[in-house]
Amino acid sequence: MNFKPFRPDWTEKAPAPGTFRSIFKYGDPHYFKHPSDAWYKMMKQDFHLSDGDFSARQSEGLMPVVLNRPSGLQPEQIDALKAIVGPENVAQDDYSRVKYASGKTAEEILELSSGIIREVADAVVHPRDKHDVRKIVEYCDALCIPLTVFSGGSSVNFGCRPVRGGISLVVSTHMNKLLEINELNQTARVQPGMFGPAYEEALNRAPDIFNTRQRYTCGHFPQSFEYSTVGGWIVTLGSGQASTYYGDAGDIVFSQEYVTPAGAFKTLDYPASATGPKVNDIMKGSEGAFGILVEVTMKIFRFMPENRQHFSFMYPTWEAAVDASREIMQSEFGKPAIYRISDPEETDRGLKLYGMPGFVNTYLSHRGFLTMQRCLSLGNVEGDRDYTRLVARKIKRIARKYGAISLSGYAARKWEHTRYTEPYMREDLNDYGILIDTLEAGVTWDNLHRLHQGVRAYIKGRPDTMCLTHASHFYPQGTNLYFIFIARMNNPDEYRAFQRGIIDQIQKFGGSLSHHHGVGRMIGPWMETHLGREQMSVLRALKRHFDPHNIMNPGGQLGLDDIPARR
Amino acid sequence: MNFKPFRPDWTEKAPAPGTFRSIFKYGDPHYFKHPSDAWYKMMKQDFHLSDGDFSARQSEGLMPVVLNRPSGLQPEQIDALKAIVGPENVAQDDYSRVKYASGKTAEEILELSSGIIREVADAVVHPRDKHDVRKIVEYCDALCIPLTVFSGGSSVNFGCRPVRGGISLVVSTHMNKLLEINELNQTARVQPGMFGPAYEEALNRAPDIFNTRQRYTCGHFPQSFEYSTVGGWIVTLGSGQASTYYGDAGDIVFSQEYVTPAGAFKTLDYPASATGPKVNDIMKGSEGAFGILVEVTMKIFRFMPENRQHFSFMYPTWEAAVDASREIMQSEFGKPAIYRISDPEETDRGLKLYGMPGFVNTYLSHRGFLTMQRCLSLGNVEGDRDYTRLVARKIKRIARKYGAISLSGYAARKWEHTRYTEPYMREDLNDYGILIDTLEAGVTWDNLHRLHQGVRAYIKGRPDTMCLTHASHFYPQGTNLYFIFIARMNNPDEYRAFQRGIIDQIQKFGGSLSHHHGVGRMIGPWMETHLGREQMSVLRALKRHFDPHNIMNPGGQLGLDDIPARR
Repeated sequence: MNFKPFRPDWTEKAPAPGTFRSIFKYGDPHYFKHPSDAWYKMMKQDFHLSDGDFSARQSEGLMPVVLNRPSGLQPEQIDALKAIVGPENVAQDDYSRVKYASGKTAEEILELSSGIIREVADAVVHPRDKHDVRKIVEYCDALCIPLTVFSGGSSVNFGCRPVRGGISLVVSTHMNKLLEINELNQTARVQPGMFGPAYEEALNRAPDIFNTRQRYTCGHFPQSFEYSTVGGWIVTLGSGQASTYYGDAGDIVFSQEYVTPAGAFKTLDYPASATGPKVNDIMKGSEGAFGILVEVTMKIFRFMPENRQHFSFMYPTWEAAVDASREIMQSEFGKPAIYRISDPEETDRGLKLYGMPGFVNTYLSHRGFLTMQRCLSLGNVEGDRDYTRLVARKIKRIARKYGAISLSGYAARKWEHTRYTEPYMREDLNDYGILIDTLEAGVTWDNLHRLHQGVRAYIKGRPDTMCLTHASHFYPQGTNLYFIFIARMNNPDEYRAFQRGIIDQIQKFGGSLSHHHGVGRMIGPWMETHLGREQMSVLRALKRHFDPHNIMNPGGQLGLDDIPARR
Repeated sequence: MNFKPFRPDWTEKAPAPGTFRSIFKYGDPHYFKHPSDAWYKMMKQDFHLSDGDFSARQSEGLMPVVLNRPSGLQPEQIDALKAIVGPENVAQDDYSRVKYASGKTAEEILELSSGIIREVADAVVHPRDKHDVRKIVEYCDALCIPLTVFSGGSSVNFGCRPVRGGISLVVSTHMNKLLEINELNQTARVQPGMFGPAYEEALNRAPDIFNTRQRYTCGHFPQSFEYSTVGGWIVTLGSGQASTYYGDAGDIVFSQEYVTPAGAFKTLDYPASATGPKVNDIMKGSEGAFGILVEVTMKIFRFMPENRQHFSFMYPTWEAAVDASREIMQSEFGKPAIYRISDPEETDRGLKLYGMPGFVNTYLSHRGFLTMQRCLSLGNVEGDRDYTRLVARKIKRIARKYGAISLSGYAARKWEHTRYTEPYMREDLNDYGILIDTLEAGVTWDNLHRLHQGVRAYIKGRPDTMCLTHASHFYPQGTNLYFIFIARMNNPDEYRAFQRGIIDQIQKFGGSLSHHHGVGRMIGPWMETHLGREQMSVLRALKRHFDPHNIMNPGGQLGLDDIPARR
């Protein structure tokens, strides 16, 4: 017998322009990444589904966007905005109003695929430069028109949702240039709406474009790299996959220029100074609630891909992987750039997803690396050639001390190759009623296992729910835990209740509410309990200072003002 | 002929208790460090002095402190304070009131040696713990009694001067314990008033005291190490001499606990989080103007002195030393811990001070390393053994590329040995009417020479004035410049005018107003111009939030409120 196994009819068609799907589909409209056969088989098994459950796609959001809501702005206000930015840079059509109100949360996919539209802006405005932004902020502040900033749109917490209407200000349309490289200082002056790939390519090609002696890299590669912007990285406190070496987004900012209702300013350009609390730090993570980032000077790094050393290891247990990682981070021989450890469930499902040959499994099991105990670690080292060799050698030595076996650099390179494409699977799964979503937290070493077990127990407490966890950003004092949950779930209300429950558990077991996804409106309601009343009141005092009329990203952002009705 | 050269009669007597000199003398009352014969000869020559000018000491401040100013606090207020902290922890005697109002500025030495007393507190209070601090802040806030925090007292900018009277709150008397080491997280929980040596010794001896597996180091060694405290390092944004590797004080803070008029709080314990602007950052550098730091969790590091590698080099020119340093900081092979370069005048005078043998000078000159061109660089590397070897090797290679010759680790070790004793020379010089003082600034690489030349030209524009400059804290984006000026000067008014002029030049030539000395009341008047009105208003908004009645370190600190009359 020789028959082809059943495969779901995964979508291979770019969504039609103007449809809901064109808004929520991740990334390149023409790129798709489908679950492997092994992964499909696993889902059927774990979710108790049959091929029949994958015979027809469910809500796909293929219908055109129709809003049918009048704009709350007056015609003369629209005219005033057009006078500032030019008529071609003001839109009021249904599609624009919905598109520039949407991010990439699982909830938005669920709702948009069924044609459910939440709050939208009254108009979408694309400023041409920082002078436009200044005039817009002055105008909106005088008339108390809400302003919500939209850049890459990769937000996973409703950070770009114009809850109070008003204007969606899209900074990525025009304000997306690399303005200058200062090679002496190793800094780059860049506009906030520049997307990751364009920024990185310009830095890599700096000798051609800016006549520099060296090639450079930005050092910041979040999973959203291709669809997120430099400004977004900073105002949401993002972390790139190589953050263990290069630092988090906040660490690689040199200075920033903002327009706020309380005035415009540029923070100082010094490698260090002792002139009181630093406004440059105060603005990091302000998520558009204090003002609009209009220009930023970033630290940049030498681009030396020829020196990279990749590694991957299999550890016998999660405890061994954690202990080894801690020793690596505290030993002071330098740091790896990318460094990740996957817990047993993620390791197991990851190996299935990527199709580990059977003999490897047999070999690993024979050596005592058992399914649902063993843990994969992978990463790379960047920097000077002798440095990367030293750090890779040291990591290997510590890994072995904790019982790991080296899997060579193969797995790390394979992971690196596909690292930006994971989110593409979301629509495939969603088409058949399966939801994949993530939540994440920062944590100290001494609380890692407690947080991992507590949150995992809650997620696994729901029947037929996968929970994949990894740590991917490391510090001498701790790391992050990144929880991926996958379940058959297509009811937004059920989803919301479940997700709220996970956030409650993160809080209960002592994780930070977010390690690098930011707060937005989704996490806002937990902020006061998390920070405490006194610290929350510091943020509110800053909010009142910068934005006395509450026009900047109002409606629950960072939990600063009243909590929107949806929660 | 065989006669002994004339030597000034440098003081060898510890100042009598209760005298002015006992307040301003640096460090250990019984320790002295006198200028070498070569240095003395150089001073005579450069300042056009003769042995006769050193025949009698001038104002030495040997008289007992007499204040003769009534306390502005009412007896019932003193009673209330005694009820909080115990009667033994409230002082109103003249000596205490003057001592705990004084820092270590050159101006204070000039004035105190002549018996001139500026503003003092009405009472000195020594809280026993953070609960005492809380009660004191509540009491003072209710009655609008000014509170000025005093810890190590090493301030060089009048940061501890109780300009509005009220209370000097001395946190180093009782709140000076290392409370806990968390070895998993590599953190230490410590009270703010703990002095450097006690803190470092407890960390070094952690296996004995806290039963840890490893020995630890704090990584922060400012020149004031022996007479400054952990809390002071943080609230003034200090930098240690090994900051190029370990980071500045602000970088090695994990979390902080504050008591402010607006409430008490502890910032969160996470290695990273993306939950909005970080209150932990906002408090750094607040210099007692927002509230009182009552406990801090510091990052700590493995103590591995056996791995240290020392190096020193002579560069042919300042330009070569700067270029090599920049390449070292940007090459990504790791970082040295201590790293310094001295400009030609500092190199020349330093060699004289430490007595370089004549044949070395002949050799150097013969090799083309000429007086007033050549520049000394020295430092060390700390961390893992293989790491320190790698970094030392790389530094040597780059130094040679820029024409330097290695002087082995001798000079670096010699410097390290005496690095905390430099300030002891101040009183000797002052006794004979010679003033030594410093100002410093952060600067980017592309502005370093301009700042160096501009400030140096101003200082050297004064006849018979030495100007020694070094850079001692390095970053990929730049460094600091530390200006030491030495002149025959004993008139406080002349000193103030000259010093104001230097600060003006730092501002004019684009340096930060302070790299690691902080702001206090001395630099306060320049803050608004430096930061700009918009950023200064952010600091003022925070001040209003934390301290609505302006009781916390009022009177010009950080330039937040009105500028005191003395400027």
